[in-house]
Amino acid sequence: METKNKKLIGVDLGGTTIKFAILTAAGEIQQKWSIRTNILDEGSHIVPDIVDSINHHIDLYKMSRDQFIGIGMGTPGTVNREKGTVIGAYNLNWKTLQPVKEQIEKGTGLKFALDNDANCAGLGERWKGAGNDGDDVAFITLGTGVGGGLIANRKLIHGVNGAGGEVGHIIVEPNGYQCTCGNHGCLEQYASATGVVHLAQDLAEEYEGDSKLKAMIDNGDEITSKIVFDLAKAHDYLANRVVDKVTYYLGLAAANISNTLNPEYMVIGGGVSAAGDFLLDRVQKNFEKFAFPTVRTSTKLKLAELGNDAGVIGAASLATQFEENAN
Amino acid sequence: METKNKKLIGVDLGGTTIKFAILTAAGEIQQKWSIRTNILDEGSHIVPDIVDSINHHIDLYKMSRDQFIGIGMGTPGTVNREKGTVIGAYNLNWKTLQPVKEQIEKGTGLKFALDNDANCAGLGERWKGAGNDGDDVAFITLGTGVGGGLIANRKLIHGVNGAGGEVGHIIVEPNGYQCTCGNHGCLEQYASATGVVHLAQDLAEEYEGDSKLKAMIDNGDEITSKIVFDLAKAHDYLANRVVDKVTYYLGLAAANISNTLNPEYMVIGGGVSAAGDFLLDRVQKNFEKFAFPTVRTSTKLKLAELGNDAGVIGAASLATQFEENAN
Repeated sequence: METKNKKLIGVDLGGTTIKFAILTAAGEIQQKWSIRTNILDEGSHIVPDIVDSINHHIDLYKMSRDQFIGIGMGTPGTVNREKGTVIGAYNLNWKTLQPVKEQIEKGTGLKFALDNDANCAGLGERWKGAGNDGDDVAFITLGTGVGGGLIANRKLIHGVNGAGGEVGHIIVEPNGYQCTCGNHGCLEQYASATGVVHLAQDLAEEYEGDSKLKAMIDNGDEITSKIVFDLAKAHDYLANRVVDKVTYYLGLAAANISNTLNPEYMVIGGGVSAAGDFLLDRVQKNFEKFAFPTVRTSTKLKLAELGNDAGVIGAASLATQFEENAN
Repeated sequence: METKNKKLIGVDLGGTTIKFAILTAAGEIQQKWSIRTNILDEGSHIVPDIVDSINHHIDLYKMSRDQFIGIGMGTPGTVNREKGTVIGAYNLNWKTLQPVKEQIEKGTGLKFALDNDANCAGLGERWKGAGNDGDDVAFITLGTGVGGGLIANRKLIHGVNGAGGEVGHIIVEPNGYQCTCGNHGCLEQYASATGVVHLAQDLAEEYEGDSKLKAMIDNGDEITSKIVFDLAKAHDYLANRVVDKVTYYLGLAAANISNTLNPEYMVIGGGVSAAGDFLLDRVQKNFEKFAFPTVRTSTKLKLAELGNDAGVIGAASLATQFEENAN
């Protein structure tokens, strides 16, 4: 069978759900499904569940193994890509080294490649989303934390120890908020969902004027990043000051990443980016202030386009490395 | 003739001198020479001088054209690598587009490749210098300005419009000193030779205590970056405050580049780096403060090792792309 008619399988492993998709070699999703992540018993059910679900769906769709190029997966934690192992994925309860590649290849009879989840989402957006199949694409994802996937010359930047693309830990405010990594002033502390709430609480404390956001915080209501952005859109003064800060730090980081890499597209995704153009326009203003002139005119800021599918699409693209062998 | 016995030619074009070298395919310099850069008549003599000098030395060493894989050159200005043209190299008096590749290939009968000078120095340090032939190496050069060459997955990061590696324009002090690029707070304004002097002048103005540096500045003596570092080594208080500032900004930028790329080596070169370990140790301290933990332990800060040879060696490495064709 010719490679172009063969399929890829993409797996996006998260702390709550595991997403799967079967794609053409060109990256079009043909089938997708998901299962709940069972993190009980130190996450020992996760890999067997993935194997069972893949085997079940191959049978369900009456396909055979030689129709597949291979499987690619994105995972939380620290990945050893060569060995196909994962360690330190705490939201999966994986505390010890997991020989994921070995188990999945054995269980499915298919070749398997692995990378971290933010890198996979970046690969997905580069290939089939906002990155427009460009050679040089930077992706920042704003979720509970801030992650990234940086692609230069069509290849992910992993660096010497896999920490390439750790854009959540770029320092945007020396001596600023303390980060879970131990440092102070990391982007993640200002532009993640939790960072937005932290900023809102701090600014509310100093603020004396009229604001629904302030009233909610003073009342002890639970605040989310979405509430802050929705109130800002409704012209709440304090909420807008919070958004100004968030977009200042995001614009500064996006500009400095771009001054370093000059990507064709700087793509912003993740939950916080659901605020859409309201967020992007203000990030853009700060980006323009801090970007080197050549970068300002050649690097385009964009919102991510694939939503939840970015992970499975990018993960599947990892398996394209097996294409030649598959001929 | 086998490729491994063939030679490379490296050219490092600067505003004062043009450096040349003949190297083995493995990057060992076998001959080197230089000529003065004649920037008269809108720099129109430069390319003919390069052609003549190469032809003359090939004859001088009784070599033939088929002994060479090709020529690589580093140049100031904005490079179009595909077309082999240069524009905007003001220190060469090149105000219009220069068809460098066309002229040099025609004049020498050899294949020719081109990149900018900082990228070439970075390639040189990666290949035969402090970069230790690593896959991922970042190079910052501190001269009159601040430039960089960033290598990930063994390839230079050019980005979509060639501004990849413009690390001199990373913002380290939002709303800080205005830069020649129009932005405020670029690294170049704090860590270049001129930036060091600017900082010294500003800090001298506020400083009231005893200091030879202050006395010199008040006296209107000409200050250089070397004088500042030499006085700091001799325990001048004000000079040490200047060095603290310079190394703070350098450490912050080096950490943020490393948080983005996680290179195996972060190499610091250029005139200001002549201050040696005195500079590096203080940059290291700030780097450790701002680097993500994985980066802190896996990215090594180093001084450049090749000095003036980095440019010709890296330039020559551009020509290795012609090796296969040369077989």
